[in-house]
Amino acid sequence: MIKRLNDAIQKKHAPIVVGLDPMLGYIPEQITKKAYAEHGETLEGAAEAIFQFNKGIVDATYDLIPAVKPQIAMYEQFGIPGLMAYKKTVDYCHEKGLVVIGDIKRGDIGSTSGAYATGHIGTIQVGANTFTPFDEDIATVNPYLGSDGVKPFIDVCNANDRGIFVLVKTSNPSSGEFQDRLVDGKPLYEIVGEKVAEWGLTSMDGDYSNVGAVVGATYPEMGAALRKIMPKAVILVPGYGAQGGQGKDLVHFFNEDGLGAIVNSSRGIIAAYKKDEYAQFGAANYADASRKAVEDMIADINGALA
Amino acid sequence: MIKRLNDAIQKKHAPIVVGLDPMLGYIPEQITKKAYAEHGETLEGAAEAIFQFNKGIVDATYDLIPAVKPQIAMYEQFGIPGLMAYKKTVDYCHEKGLVVIGDIKRGDIGSTSGAYATGHIGTIQVGANTFTPFDEDIATVNPYLGSDGVKPFIDVCNANDRGIFVLVKTSNPSSGEFQDRLVDGKPLYEIVGEKVAEWGLTSMDGDYSNVGAVVGATYPEMGAALRKIMPKAVILVPGYGAQGGQGKDLVHFFNEDGLGAIVNSSRGIIAAYKKDEYAQFGAANYADASRKAVEDMIADINGALA
Repeated sequence: MIKRLNDAIQKKHAPIVVGLDPMLGYIPEQITKKAYAEHGETLEGAAEAIFQFNKGIVDATYDLIPAVKPQIAMYEQFGIPGLMAYKKTVDYCHEKGLVVIGDIKRGDIGSTSGAYATGHIGTIQVGANTFTPFDEDIATVNPYLGSDGVKPFIDVCNANDRGIFVLVKTSNPSSGEFQDRLVDGKPLYEIVGEKVAEWGLTSMDGDYSNVGAVVGATYPEMGAALRKIMPKAVILVPGYGAQGGQGKDLVHFFNEDGLGAIVNSSRGIIAAYKKDEYAQFGAANYADASRKAVEDMIADINGALA
Repeated sequence: MIKRLNDAIQKKHAPIVVGLDPMLGYIPEQITKKAYAEHGETLEGAAEAIFQFNKGIVDATYDLIPAVKPQIAMYEQFGIPGLMAYKKTVDYCHEKGLVVIGDIKRGDIGSTSGAYATGHIGTIQVGANTFTPFDEDIATVNPYLGSDGVKPFIDVCNANDRGIFVLVKTSNPSSGEFQDRLVDGKPLYEIVGEKVAEWGLTSMDGDYSNVGAVVGATYPEMGAALRKIMPKAVILVPGYGAQGGQGKDLVHFFNEDGLGAIVNSSRGIIAAYKKDEYAQFGAANYADASRKAVEDMIADINGALA
């Protein structure tokens, strides 16, 4: 799977991913109004609004980008109807040829992690039939439970040609509370990074591993250190834009081949029309604002890498 | 919320919780056959089988137990229909007066953790209407992202009288890989435990906090240490029975008031009829086997505490 992602990054010359993390407050009124008229001010109405909002952004940007990253929490907050909108989003992005990174941050012990892996990137047997329940291409995984929480995901990656990104150093302000603690003089995130490198050798796909890592754009110097610790891992880099990261900070997340990282922006793209910079598009043309924001982000990152 | 749980534990004299973690392999043929006849060998058929299996166990045990803990991964693996069975299970257990601990192990940054909290233990506004999407009473939370990943859950606990159990030391064999690493001579799980104690002071409910902790039965000596570090936290203790823990190992998870811990058993209860000990019940009477296993577990733990 990681080869497919890297090929798409090279073909589109765009090491970026658009985070489809819709909040009701981002969605232009013309969309919510129509959805509520059809489904009422209900969870179903909110879910329909979310899907239509996503569809507009995907239609306006899919030719520029290799991948999307829907954040499942933003759908799960609307219960079952929200999760149906998540699944519809995954399927629609597949129709458009995009790699779908499910930002699910799941993680549990043994067979329970196996169940999450099955549901999101695997297949399940019911009687004589086989199903692919959520069908993301790649999932994010929380490592706090250790190897026996992560390996069931890797088994499913190997069985179905899928990938995972393991949380190593997250982009949020308090990520250091546990992740930066020094163990024999070495921060915990480096120890997790070493494990990612070790796990990754069991699922290679071309020059890179199906086992990647999440490292926040907001910690560029840690990104540089982790790049060396995990040479075969693609690093998914959240925190660009709204959280403060910029293209010039991200150079050291990449390898010399120009690969090895994919930078995510969510709010900065999907709610671009709300920023002064893109306000001229207006709410009616929110998706065009997103397209322009994608173009600017690609230029910023490719400019820094050049 | 934690007062409601403690009251139910005292009333039923049963500091235990039944883990509703159904696997298709546990479900007697008479149930799957009927479900597949109605819905086909589909995700919907599997979901119906799971719900009916749960219902049998809940009907046979609800008068003995204060709480259930459905493990969402076991439902999520069947996609949307599976999650609908999860929600039906939550609602059915509420009808029976049980406290529902959603074993969801979610955790993310800021607003994203807020979205998970909203979806599971909170309420969400759509236009003029308010919804409680999944409506569990308590949720398990992963702490790897630090305070700003956990606090949004606590805010929702305070707004809606709900609770959380934060993963501190999990029951699985490789939990030590990161959780036991020594930071200034102190294992990471103790540092997480100290944070749980600190967070807990912001959401007290009677003598205990709505912010509890997960500590595996498989590590009793660590349980004793953590009991002291988090005096006001109720400890949810997985790993009893099938994973190896026994009543006598669990005494030090409790406080002198006889409260402070709730012990989970999943497979040992819900698949009791598959064990030699309870084989005389047979698959037809699987729920009666579960009832007997609950009685034996309560006797084992209360005997050790006496």
